[in-house]
Amino acid sequence: MAVARLARLVLGPGAVRGRGAVAGSLPRCAGPGRAPRRLFSNRNILVELEEGAGVAVMKMKSPPVNSLSLDFLTEFSISLEKLENDRGCRGVILTSGNCPAGGCLMAVSCDYRIMAENPKYSIGLNETQLGIVAPFWFKDTMVNTIGHRATERSLQLGLLYSASDALKIGIVDELVPEEKVLNAAAATMSQWLAIPDYARQISKSMMRKPTLDRMLTHRESDIQNFVSFVTKDSIQKSLQTYMERLKQRKG
Amino acid sequence: MAVARLARLVLGPGAVRGRGAVAGSLPRCAGPGRAPRRLFSNRNILVELEEGAGVAVMKMKSPPVNSLSLDFLTEFSISLEKLENDRGCRGVILTSGNCPAGGCLMAVSCDYRIMAENPKYSIGLNETQLGIVAPFWFKDTMVNTIGHRATERSLQLGLLYSASDALKIGIVDELVPEEKVLNAAAATMSQWLAIPDYARQISKSMMRKPTLDRMLTHRESDIQNFVSFVTKDSIQKSLQTYMERLKQRKG
Amino acid sequence: MAVARLARLVLGPGAVRGRGAVAGSLPRCAGPGRAPRRLFSNRNILVELEEGAGVAVMKMKSPPVNSLSLDFLTEFSISLEKLENDRGCRGVILTSGNCPAGGCLMAVSCDYRIMAENPKYSIGLNETQLGIVAPFWFKDTMVNTIGHRATERSLQLGLLYSASDALKIGIVDELVPEEKVLNAAAATMSQWLAIPDYARQISKSMMRKPTLDRMLTHRESDIQNFVSFVTKDSIQKSLQTYMERLKQRKG
Repeated sequence: MAVARLARLVLGPGAVRGRGAVAGSLPRCAGPGRAPRRLFSNRNILVELEEGAGVAVMKMKSPPVNSLSLDFLTEFSISLEKLENDRGCRGVILTSGNCPAGGCLMAVSCDYRIMAENPKYSIGLNETQLGIVAPFWFKDTMVNTIGHRATERSLQLGLLYSASDALKIGIVDELVPEEKVLNAAAATMSQWLAIPDYARQISKSMMRKPTLDRMLTHRESDIQNFVSFVTKDSIQKSLQTYMERLKQRKG
Repeated sequence: MAVARLARLVLGPGAVRGRGAVAGSLPRCAGPGRAPRRLFSNRNILVELEEGAGVAVMKMKSPPVNSLSLDFLTEFSISLEKLENDRGCRGVILTSGNCPAGGCLMAVSCDYRIMAENPKYSIGLNETQLGIVAPFWFKDTMVNTIGHRATERSLQLGLLYSASDALKIGIVDELVPEEKVLNAAAATMSQWLAIPDYARQISKSMMRKPTLDRMLTHRESDIQNFVSFVTKDSIQKSLQTYMERLKQRKG
Repeated sequence: MAVARLARLVLGPGAVRGRGAVAGSLPRCAGPGRAPRRLFSNRNILVELEEGAGVAVMKMKSPPVNSLSLDFLTEFSISLEKLENDRGCRGVILTSGNCPAGGCLMAVSCDYRIMAENPKYSIGLNETQLGIVAPFWFKDTMVNTIGHRATERSLQLGLLYSASDALKIGIVDELVPEEKVLNAAAATMSQWLAIPDYARQISKSMMRKPTLDRMLTHRESDIQNFVSFVTKDSIQKSLQTYMERLKQRKG
């Protein structure tokens, strides 16, 4: 159930039928400058919708790290669904801090990525660093974004990219000073929304559907593989070490 | 019939069994410096063949824009066929001005692209700007040329690239001052013709055949899709606006 | 038999179940600075294993060119197998001089490529220059490394890249002065070996398995095609010219 939801939501921006989605790495409390209407909120996620533009901003707010727990992902999934069903919403801006592993997938599932020029942020699929393996649909989405060769090196070494390296490799599209991330995202969004929705959505689907279909076709076997892999003693031990390191960062 | 011809000819340079084809963006009246033998001409297209080199130059000559009408495409198709059957011809240089939509496909179907450094020229698949969608075989050819990520952004936003952006993204291979385009094309062509034709043709086919086969396999459904899409009232209206803008440029 | 071995060994570094493999272009007599244990040697290949690091260095030693003869490839294959079965070996550094054709495939089959900044070295699939055609699995591996467009141009023209062009196009990952190649390779290898072997091997297989499977599926027809092609009179003549040129370099 959890894994099914995860699959659905991390590819959510692709599933939101062509609505523009832009991810930025930005401080959690920065606002877009204009006063948005608060739409809804829950423990982990805050969603604001600016009604004039039809653009929602979705903020993840469980510091110090937005762990992709069942709890968090459920809220994330519900939030995206609400926006998808809201005819007044044409685009979603996702904000996050660091983007390792699942956070990186969320970002590359979006249409455009803006990253703050701040040495404390990084982005990448670092699974092998924890002794685990990124699922094939993470890999496919990464190949679509940065190509085969860069993905191979990236996955094998579990690389986390700094802002400038991320731009160079193409995993993000634009760097801006941290305080300007939301404004840059709003400007980019208006470019995407200037295109007739219908034509843009079909074009997007044409690019992403094969990858999405492959994920859906192999979902069950992927879950089985992952469960049998991750419950191994050696892997559990390796993950425990990682979790303890994360807790120390929280403390 | 028209669409069948279109499919055939826009992929023509691929179908010309490995003969080198180079597209340039250049003024319609510039000549290659040397006196070529005039081979044949019709209302829209002028073909000259330099017999020593075995290189034909095909000029599109219906200013101000070479609209890809049934008329134009029929002549284009016939011209390519004549060259294909002419054993004295080993390579074709296509010249065109701007390269939006179908013009861009013609360019990326060639082996090499040279663009004039002139701000008035641009190249790209701008279909979504008109409210329509590039066919999947435009998309496939674009992915082969500039990769998945750049194609996705390019198609969704209907981007037209200036010369310098076109070079950066890799949709053209070389920029030269406008008056040197044909000479640069001739120089490049001689590089391609220095390779044994047979080995070069098989190598080219190895790279392009899967894309071509996919187009041929799905041709009928693609035509049906396009016809049912383009005859919608909303799409017709959007195209009418675009055609009126083009007419104003002609006037 | 020879071709079967060839197929196996040139993809050997992929087949060595995820063990890191790094290719460098370096002078044949340079050592890694530290005293390695000599493991084994034969007429064409010298393999040294540094036991502490678990890293083997495989040197090809039949100057002036390591012709990929049946003899050479058999030894190469056996050497890789020995290393694969040696539990004390976690990574292999292959060294070679120039990397045309099959040498280039060996390099792109590795995980990382370091090239000496020396104008006398080049790398590329130059088959068409000899009037022959790179096999589809050379092509596939090249596309995985430098992308579709660069591969198409590269294969059609049979391009050999200088060090700086090779870096630009991405066929090598790093340039270093010639005397530092082995040290750079050792440093890179330790990065790769810092990742848990198991996670890295699965990630690598996820990236390379489809290409490898395709090669294995079509191996027999590929051999038939190649044999019938290469035994043509015209091709034999073209190859003879090339071999004579190589012999002149030896003399």
